[in-house]
Amino acid sequence: MGCNEKQPSIRLGELAEYLKGQLCGDPEAWITGVAEIYCARPGQITFLANPRYAAYLRTTRASAVIIDSRTEGEPPLPYIRVDDAYFAYRQTVCLLYPEPRRIDPGVHPSAVLAEGVHLGEGVAVGAHVYLGRNVAVGKNTRILPGCVVMDGSSIGEDCLLHPLVVVREGCTIGNRVIIHSGAVIGSDGFGYARYHGAYHKIPQIGTVVIEDDVEIGANATIDRAALGETRIGRGVKLDNLVHLAHNVRVGAHTVMAAQTGISGSVEIGREVVLGGQVGAAGHIKIEDRVVVGAKSGITKDVAEGQTVFGVPARPIMQAKRMEAALRSLPGLIKRIRQLERELAALKAEEKRK
Amino acid sequence: MGCNEKQPSIRLGELAEYLKGQLCGDPEAWITGVAEIYCARPGQITFLANPRYAAYLRTTRASAVIIDSRTEGEPPLPYIRVDDAYFAYRQTVCLLYPEPRRIDPGVHPSAVLAEGVHLGEGVAVGAHVYLGRNVAVGKNTRILPGCVVMDGSSIGEDCLLHPLVVVREGCTIGNRVIIHSGAVIGSDGFGYARYHGAYHKIPQIGTVVIEDDVEIGANATIDRAALGETRIGRGVKLDNLVHLAHNVRVGAHTVMAAQTGISGSVEIGREVVLGGQVGAAGHIKIEDRVVVGAKSGITKDVAEGQTVFGVPARPIMQAKRMEAALRSLPGLIKRIRQLERELAALKAEEKRK
Amino acid sequence: MGCNEKQPSIRLGELAEYLKGQLCGDPEAWITGVAEIYCARPGQITFLANPRYAAYLRTTRASAVIIDSRTEGEPPLPYIRVDDAYFAYRQTVCLLYPEPRRIDPGVHPSAVLAEGVHLGEGVAVGAHVYLGRNVAVGKNTRILPGCVVMDGSSIGEDCLLHPLVVVREGCTIGNRVIIHSGAVIGSDGFGYARYHGAYHKIPQIGTVVIEDDVEIGANATIDRAALGETRIGRGVKLDNLVHLAHNVRVGAHTVMAAQTGISGSVEIGREVVLGGQVGAAGHIKIEDRVVVGAKSGITKDVAEGQTVFGVPARPIMQAKRMEAALRSLPGLIKRIRQLERELAALKAEEKRK
Repeated sequence: MGCNEKQPSIRLGELAEYLKGQLCGDPEAWITGVAEIYCARPGQITFLANPRYAAYLRTTRASAVIIDSRTEGEPPLPYIRVDDAYFAYRQTVCLLYPEPRRIDPGVHPSAVLAEGVHLGEGVAVGAHVYLGRNVAVGKNTRILPGCVVMDGSSIGEDCLLHPLVVVREGCTIGNRVIIHSGAVIGSDGFGYARYHGAYHKIPQIGTVVIEDDVEIGANATIDRAALGETRIGRGVKLDNLVHLAHNVRVGAHTVMAAQTGISGSVEIGREVVLGGQVGAAGHIKIEDRVVVGAKSGITKDVAEGQTVFGVPARPIMQAKRMEAALRSLPGLIKRIRQLERELAALKAEEKRK
Repeated sequence: MGCNEKQPSIRLGELAEYLKGQLCGDPEAWITGVAEIYCARPGQITFLANPRYAAYLRTTRASAVIIDSRTEGEPPLPYIRVDDAYFAYRQTVCLLYPEPRRIDPGVHPSAVLAEGVHLGEGVAVGAHVYLGRNVAVGKNTRILPGCVVMDGSSIGEDCLLHPLVVVREGCTIGNRVIIHSGAVIGSDGFGYARYHGAYHKIPQIGTVVIEDDVEIGANATIDRAALGETRIGRGVKLDNLVHLAHNVRVGAHTVMAAQTGISGSVEIGREVVLGGQVGAAGHIKIEDRVVVGAKSGITKDVAEGQTVFGVPARPIMQAKRMEAALRSLPGLIKRIRQLERELAALKAEEKRK
Repeated sequence: MGCNEKQPSIRLGELAEYLKGQLCGDPEAWITGVAEIYCARPGQITFLANPRYAAYLRTTRASAVIIDSRTEGEPPLPYIRVDDAYFAYRQTVCLLYPEPRRIDPGVHPSAVLAEGVHLGEGVAVGAHVYLGRNVAVGKNTRILPGCVVMDGSSIGEDCLLHPLVVVREGCTIGNRVIIHSGAVIGSDGFGYARYHGAYHKIPQIGTVVIEDDVEIGANATIDRAALGETRIGRGVKLDNLVHLAHNVRVGAHTVMAAQTGISGSVEIGREVVLGGQVGAAGHIKIEDRVVVGAKSGITKDVAEGQTVFGVPARPIMQAKRMEAALRSLPGLIKRIRQLERELAALKAEEKRK
């Protein structure tokens, strides 16, 4: 586990209580870690969230397992039965593996702070960080080594900027936001006026607003607006290498898997799920609770709650039907040839008569 | 608008004159900003470049609008009629929102300059920048915090390197080039000789040449040549997360949208337009003025002026025809089944006679 | 060639001996560089690995050429005949263009080393580097300017971290590993428990292990495991902007071209070849020596040695057959219409009788 120096430990009974679960087993037993069901060792607790892995219950060497109502019958080892095993697994990890203190609070002597920087209580600013003029950082936020925050940006409380994040000038970041290494917030949108054969840059004078509880993956890029703002709603989670163009708006609790790219001025609703390597054309609207399969290309508006897939993206049933039809195509060609032959034979017969 | 401290202002008459447009309205009125037609407030000027948005002319709260010959009739608000409304909007933004001075001129004391670095007049080198041996930087170029330029590279005049850009050794960058945060210029090409089952790295001893007026997006990667050079022509614009492999050549005024990737030794002409998430196979030629739809996979040469789309990329009309045929496929299957039934009935009839 | 200050030189006879090749030509002739066959100048040596370029043998201005048994007959210029011309080209480049010394050995005064850092002999740590608590660096490893290595990570011997690489806490990197600029090793996996409508982050407490002789491209991202480890086998080569999610395992000598993304817990065998912009769905297994065409979407297990292509990826023969069928589709529609007409005529005829 590398980054956690001390081995965690808790008694099984205490853990069951913390998880508000029902324990079957010795409450005094020590739990010293969390592991996957197929590789857990004695002393560790595991979990079963996907019934597909139920067979491992018989072979796991774990000292206990967290289950929920999706697991029928009695596991042959101590268990804690909870409301939602995956969420309880998450709670257990949070409890046993508290976040490491990556850098000391305070401002590292090698950091450079321009005029007018305001730091809240408990802020940690790492080595070689640069904070531009009038940057504001809320309390307990940690800005790890090598990050650059340009003039006039503000970052809320309890945020974590991993090493080498860039926040360009004038961006606003909420509370409890996590930004992974290499992500760039507020880069210029890709905007040009074509005139007499050459492209003339349109200064991107808008900004980026990131609401509370957002997480942004490594090397993701979020462009600032041409005019106005690019906005990422509360609780949004973006995976690595995601690209959001200028003036994109993303609703609350939407998630996007890695390498997905959204063109300019797209409006995405709340609780939308985009698979990996998806693309969306500019100026379209993807409504609330839409689900988009990986590698899809969205070319027009998608209505609330639809599941779409493909290039261009179509409602999933239609996409599946087309996919099935496509698979049957080589067979169809043979059938057509057969029809042609039979018809020709029939016509010849007819003529002969 | 975050990054611009003072509110801009200009009289409508002056602006009309600057844009060489024809004013209809009070030349003494103050314009204090630029905004989109649907959200502009009184005091702001807006523009109408796309006739689709003409209906907003009746509802916008803007104090004036920039239009061109694509807008028929008289807007119900003060207006400036110009040759090209989008380009005039661009000119207005440039006028009202001069580029912010992100860092002070001179070399920040925390920057590290190796031997033989040559800086032109007015150069600004930000905090924690590293310039390697014999790096040359032309006048008025700004290298923002955290950038690294390795040995022997040269950067022209009036360039802007946003925070955390890497320029590897021996690259040549022209004048007025803008490179966004996280971009890597001159990384090694992906070249190996496979020998007895393992891959042996081929030292990439070539370089990258970037001509004048190029803009490179955030986290884009431009590999150096194996031998010779990777070259990006004058006025080329690359969006975020674009990848150009070793020995790629890109002609003048070509643009590539986000997440597009070009394999080794591809030759791309001038004024080519590549959509987002496009891929191109190695060693092919994409001629001048080709247009490639988003998400396409280009597998062979594309002749001058063609518009292509799909995986593999085909001429657009052919791609559309195939797409329409594909949509009709489930219906075709029914028609074939119907034909088979009718033919069987006919043959049975025939036999009976 | 920018980054190599001195012109290399060797006598043709010495080179032939070094390559264990058979020389035809003057062993005393000086070779002063390596270049492609179509642009080599007198004094340079070139190579012919692909018989397609054999015609250049008659026109090249190179002073000698490296060939192998794939080239028939006698080239009209001095040549060295070897076992494998491409590998011999690689050996020649390595010989004539030794790697530049990018930074001086020792720790640059601007670098920041936390407590407990251990550096082997001959290590070079560049300007503005940050090494976290208890980081260990093996002998002769070079960490170029601006890199950040967080607490508890270890890096082996003879490694090269190009500028602005991030290695997050607790990662293990083997010997002779090359990591290109902007790559992020050990970023958090994309793991959340959805509970009551919101996504709750699952702390990613696992790690990343990179074995010997791996090379990782610019701006690539390798996520740490949720539990356990993400592992990259010996000799693996990853191109720029590749993304590996948490708990991915990659076998020895596997290569992935640019912008490919692998979802969580995918297991990839050894000597696998993935083209560019490929995607793989989570929890699948791609066995040894599989080859995947560019832009494919792998949705299920792929058996040893298969070549697959498409979205979803299918065995290459099947994919080609479907592609051919698809191309014939517009023609098929016409044939069906024709069949319908003829059948209708036949039935009308039948009725008339």
